[in-house]
Amino acid sequence: MSLTDEQRAEIEAQRGTSSPTRRASVPALEAMLYRAIPVLDHGFVRVIDYMGDDGAVVQSARVSYGRGTRRTSEDAGLIRYLMRHRHTTPFEMCEIKYHVKLPIFVARQWIRHRTASVNEYSARYSILDREFYIPAPAHLAAQSVVNRQGRGDVLQGDEAAQVLDLLRDDAARCHHHYVEMLNEGADGAAVDPARQGLARELARMNLTLNTYTQWYWKIDLHNLLHFLSLRLDTHAQHEIRVYAEAMLATVEAWVPATCAAFRDYRLGAVTFSAGMLAVLRRMLTGEQVAQPSSGLSKREWAEMMGALGREG
Amino acid sequence: MSLTDEQRAEIEAQRGTSSPTRRASVPALEAMLYRAIPVLDHGFVRVIDYMGDDGAVVQSARVSYGRGTRRTSEDAGLIRYLMRHRHTTPFEMCEIKYHVKLPIFVARQWIRHRTASVNEYSARYSILDREFYIPAPAHLAAQSVVNRQGRGDVLQGDEAAQVLDLLRDDAARCHHHYVEMLNEGADGAAVDPARQGLARELARMNLTLNTYTQWYWKIDLHNLLHFLSLRLDTHAQHEIRVYAEAMLATVEAWVPATCAAFRDYRLGAVTFSAGMLAVLRRMLTGEQVAQPSSGLSKREWAEMMGALGREG
Amino acid sequence: MSLTDEQRAEIEAQRGTSSPTRRASVPALEAMLYRAIPVLDHGFVRVIDYMGDDGAVVQSARVSYGRGTRRTSEDAGLIRYLMRHRHTTPFEMCEIKYHVKLPIFVARQWIRHRTASVNEYSARYSILDREFYIPAPAHLAAQSVVNRQGRGDVLQGDEAAQVLDLLRDDAARCHHHYVEMLNEGADGAAVDPARQGLARELARMNLTLNTYTQWYWKIDLHNLLHFLSLRLDTHAQHEIRVYAEAMLATVEAWVPATCAAFRDYRLGAVTFSAGMLAVLRRMLTGEQVAQPSSGLSKREWAEMMGALGREG
Amino acid sequence: MSLTDEQRAEIEAQRGTSSPTRRASVPALEAMLYRAIPVLDHGFVRVIDYMGDDGAVVQSARVSYGRGTRRTSEDAGLIRYLMRHRHTTPFEMCEIKYHVKLPIFVARQWIRHRTASVNEYSARYSILDREFYIPAPAHLAAQSVVNRQGRGDVLQGDEAAQVLDLLRDDAARCHHHYVEMLNEGADGAAVDPARQGLARELARMNLTLNTYTQWYWKIDLHNLLHFLSLRLDTHAQHEIRVYAEAMLATVEAWVPATCAAFRDYRLGAVTFSAGMLAVLRRMLTGEQVAQPSSGLSKREWAEMMGALGREG
Repeated sequence: MSLTDEQRAEIEAQRGTSSPTRRASVPALEAMLYRAIPVLDHGFVRVIDYMGDDGAVVQSARVSYGRGTRRTSEDAGLIRYLMRHRHTTPFEMCEIKYHVKLPIFVARQWIRHRTASVNEYSARYSILDREFYIPAPAHLAAQSVVNRQGRGDVLQGDEAAQVLDLLRDDAARCHHHYVEMLNEGADGAAVDPARQGLARELARMNLTLNTYTQWYWKIDLHNLLHFLSLRLDTHAQHEIRVYAEAMLATVEAWVPATCAAFRDYRLGAVTFSAGMLAVLRRMLTGEQVAQPSSGLSKREWAEMMGALGREG
Repeated sequence: MSLTDEQRAEIEAQRGTSSPTRRASVPALEAMLYRAIPVLDHGFVRVIDYMGDDGAVVQSARVSYGRGTRRTSEDAGLIRYLMRHRHTTPFEMCEIKYHVKLPIFVARQWIRHRTASVNEYSARYSILDREFYIPAPAHLAAQSVVNRQGRGDVLQGDEAAQVLDLLRDDAARCHHHYVEMLNEGADGAAVDPARQGLARELARMNLTLNTYTQWYWKIDLHNLLHFLSLRLDTHAQHEIRVYAEAMLATVEAWVPATCAAFRDYRLGAVTFSAGMLAVLRRMLTGEQVAQPSSGLSKREWAEMMGALGREG
Repeated sequence: MSLTDEQRAEIEAQRGTSSPTRRASVPALEAMLYRAIPVLDHGFVRVIDYMGDDGAVVQSARVSYGRGTRRTSEDAGLIRYLMRHRHTTPFEMCEIKYHVKLPIFVARQWIRHRTASVNEYSARYSILDREFYIPAPAHLAAQSVVNRQGRGDVLQGDEAAQVLDLLRDDAARCHHHYVEMLNEGADGAAVDPARQGLARELARMNLTLNTYTQWYWKIDLHNLLHFLSLRLDTHAQHEIRVYAEAMLATVEAWVPATCAAFRDYRLGAVTFSAGMLAVLRRMLTGEQVAQPSSGLSKREWAEMMGALGREG
Repeated sequence: MSLTDEQRAEIEAQRGTSSPTRRASVPALEAMLYRAIPVLDHGFVRVIDYMGDDGAVVQSARVSYGRGTRRTSEDAGLIRYLMRHRHTTPFEMCEIKYHVKLPIFVARQWIRHRTASVNEYSARYSILDREFYIPAPAHLAAQSVVNRQGRGDVLQGDEAAQVLDLLRDDAARCHHHYVEMLNEGADGAAVDPARQGLARELARMNLTLNTYTQWYWKIDLHNLLHFLSLRLDTHAQHEIRVYAEAMLATVEAWVPATCAAFRDYRLGAVTFSAGMLAVLRRMLTGEQVAQPSSGLSKREWAEMMGALGREG
């Protein structure tokens, strides 16, 4: 992660101030507040602000005048009930805001979730830093031969070295030319007085998709959990999953009861189709069912056996 | 407003607790927190939670690492600029949550705004109190004779008295029968053991539309301002406008710079169409323009003259 | 269902017109177009317009230049894949618009789904007809004694008769007084010239929640399926479930492949939590598992056994 | 614009089929259907599907049983009224779907509008073509010296030539290396059997932001007009404004009455703040007002004079 000294100082200054509030407050999340959690080679996630806690979920489910909470076990039970039966609106009552630094190709996936508020650093107004994502050798995966969208083995030897060289050189050269076309010095004056400098909003098109950008991203707890359930999935691309993992840790600190229910009823849960259920019932009577007689396609059969921890 | 002693105690208990936070905090809004602002005869609005302040708008517009704010005048200038040019996303970075008690017919208008999170007290699970909205005599308006959706003069004398009697009697009778059909005592046991009691989800259909309901309503600042601009309008129904006015006071306390810009660029602003602009330019050259030669319809002409504070 | 002769004529007139289009068109849905499907005693659902078909789902999943469809079996396989893996955006590419007549208390549940466009008949501008929902005797359910939000047995004998009388009388009286307070004749003139007439926007508050309203409701296929999955659930209130059933029939005609996948992967599917999956794996090895040693709560255990078609 | 012969054939095949429909149909838009409107050097916009017409706006505003339309002049008057008073929901009742080919940096601006449905061509699954946006010489603008986000003069001579060379070379080299790292032949087999080939989802990060992507984009008329009002603005970047202009032509063909009202009340309209209105009133009395005594900032004053077509 590459924060400048000035940025670190700004963050610590903000951490240093404290004020009293009548609002619900979560010490475990306060402890994390503003600090950057490193992700990938130059990225980070940091919590900037939040509203509500596990109690706020309970409180709004009960439309209460006061805190609305009772014994911790009762509250956790209500939260589990709401999660299981997809009563989602009480989870919308908590809100969190992140500052995220991430490669542009990850940002493009991320932004497909439309139920959040975003303010991105603008390359129309400002100049992007010379920072690109270069995969660690362990994540330099080959195209999967069985799955059009998946990753296969990790590249080795010459091929790996060559790929890393290409990625580094192209990103660096493109950024170098970006700066050259802009022709802007630190003081805003032209570097080469004989040139006008290309408009920022045009010059940015020369950057590669692994260039880092950053944004403020604000979302309610329900929609955050939905985002996380999709992006923590094994089918999600590694480069976005690591952001989701960093955010899951903040959710754990923030709303522990909700997070536990989320792990049980979403992350660790499996949905069986009507067809799969019919197979399951036969299996539970002791019948040996095989794919050809199951009524399921090969792919569905494999998914079902996987969920049950069985060999197909 | 009709809070029970128990409810008041719950509210004061919540006001009594305080904890330190590193988050942005607004003393003027903290002072209001949880307290019910009376609206209509039995309704209220109260702020339950909030996130962000004027500084958060500035901070996200600048995508900064620290607070992002500079001199107060510069920040206010940026906020005015954002408001004027409809750069709306920074205003989405603040969030507020209200507890509102309101008549059902008002709730039905209110809920048309879809960009908020709502948890309403459920009449499928719970029993609604015997509270209905009865207009104060000064708001017992006749149907406008010039405007299909407007109000005319205030009803007087016998007609007023008769209307108030009908409203009161019908609401009371319907609620009385609602309770009778439910057949539930305070302890949940049947009042009349010979009867089973109608399901709550069915019995509620016997209530009148002026019965009070309540909900938790959470929204971001941008969408709240949009809601307020529509509901503070002179064309809005009085019974929802008074809620909007109560909420505007909370916005004033919460984000004063944003609220000032909102008053100038939204509440007090007028949009002139291309046709109106053409008329305006002629008028500014000193030409005397009248409706027939203006190219505007009579209604548009009247609206334009109204905006300019002129007789048609 | 109570359509006037004039309304029937309008509907048939619209059905009588036909024009050629290059757009995807679905004969089975065209056959239903504009015709009202009766629901409850006076309500209906009718399809007013639609866009897209099963092919449009496939086409957008493939981002193709032409129709994008291949063999029917391949297309159905892709649709099943999208549904199973919750790739929801291709289903957003189809759109449907309904005209619905429904009791106000049902409309209040319905409107909680925010991802649709709505234009409701306005009681600020217009006068509501004298039509209320009165449950058929078979649906006059008692409050459940085991479930706070559920229905129990059907009311019988005197209690049933009494409830029906109360519902009918109160709704009729309230509407009668509504009309009286309005004081408007068919021609808009005052019925009683000595009275001004209460504003429509106020008079409506005297109506009961079983009064019928109507609206245009437009939604994309993905969000419609989500609405249906919630409202076809056995926990949904009967009075909204019957609307969902009528709409499911229109979806069946419109997008048969999508509808089949929806039945298999949503309506007939069950989600097992991480805890339930652990129990399932033990059961599949032949172990006899009982609730106390399952790690599941009694309620979760009962839900799981229900899903497996087993006695607890 | 670069459509392959195969793509052209697919488009013409789809244009060749016609079926009868009872739905509202718009001949002027049918004439355009599926055909690509060229935008920039390789991009396009084409209408893929639509639902509704001007009559549908009127019909839903009236919640009618039949077509709901009356005389054309009355309908246009109602549409103008709805547009002027921001009664936006009737405009949500029309829907349109586009297929758009556009540079990635334009797509990143576009996607900030969240009220649309999108299916983008996936570079995780598929390989992007070797097509990049290179500005025409007339649009190769310098950075504005007065406005941080604006464009200044067009670059000339050597500087222009140099910039075009850099943009072309870098995009071409990056795409060349992208293909090399993928190591996939037309038949899917490895080009160089000694290499595995980098995963597509990783290789794409080497592409520059002017690479073309494409998507299906579906939106309702209200939100489309909002998008257009922002992107047709003089402050919008040229490269997205040309897409908005192409789409405005399709709106003109589709809903002419709505489009005329949009031009008058949105595109050609100006909003005056409370402060500007006060100045306007003084000016209309014949007073000579200058900026220093206006109460407006210099920037606001200049904007106001611009709107009135006056020298400051």
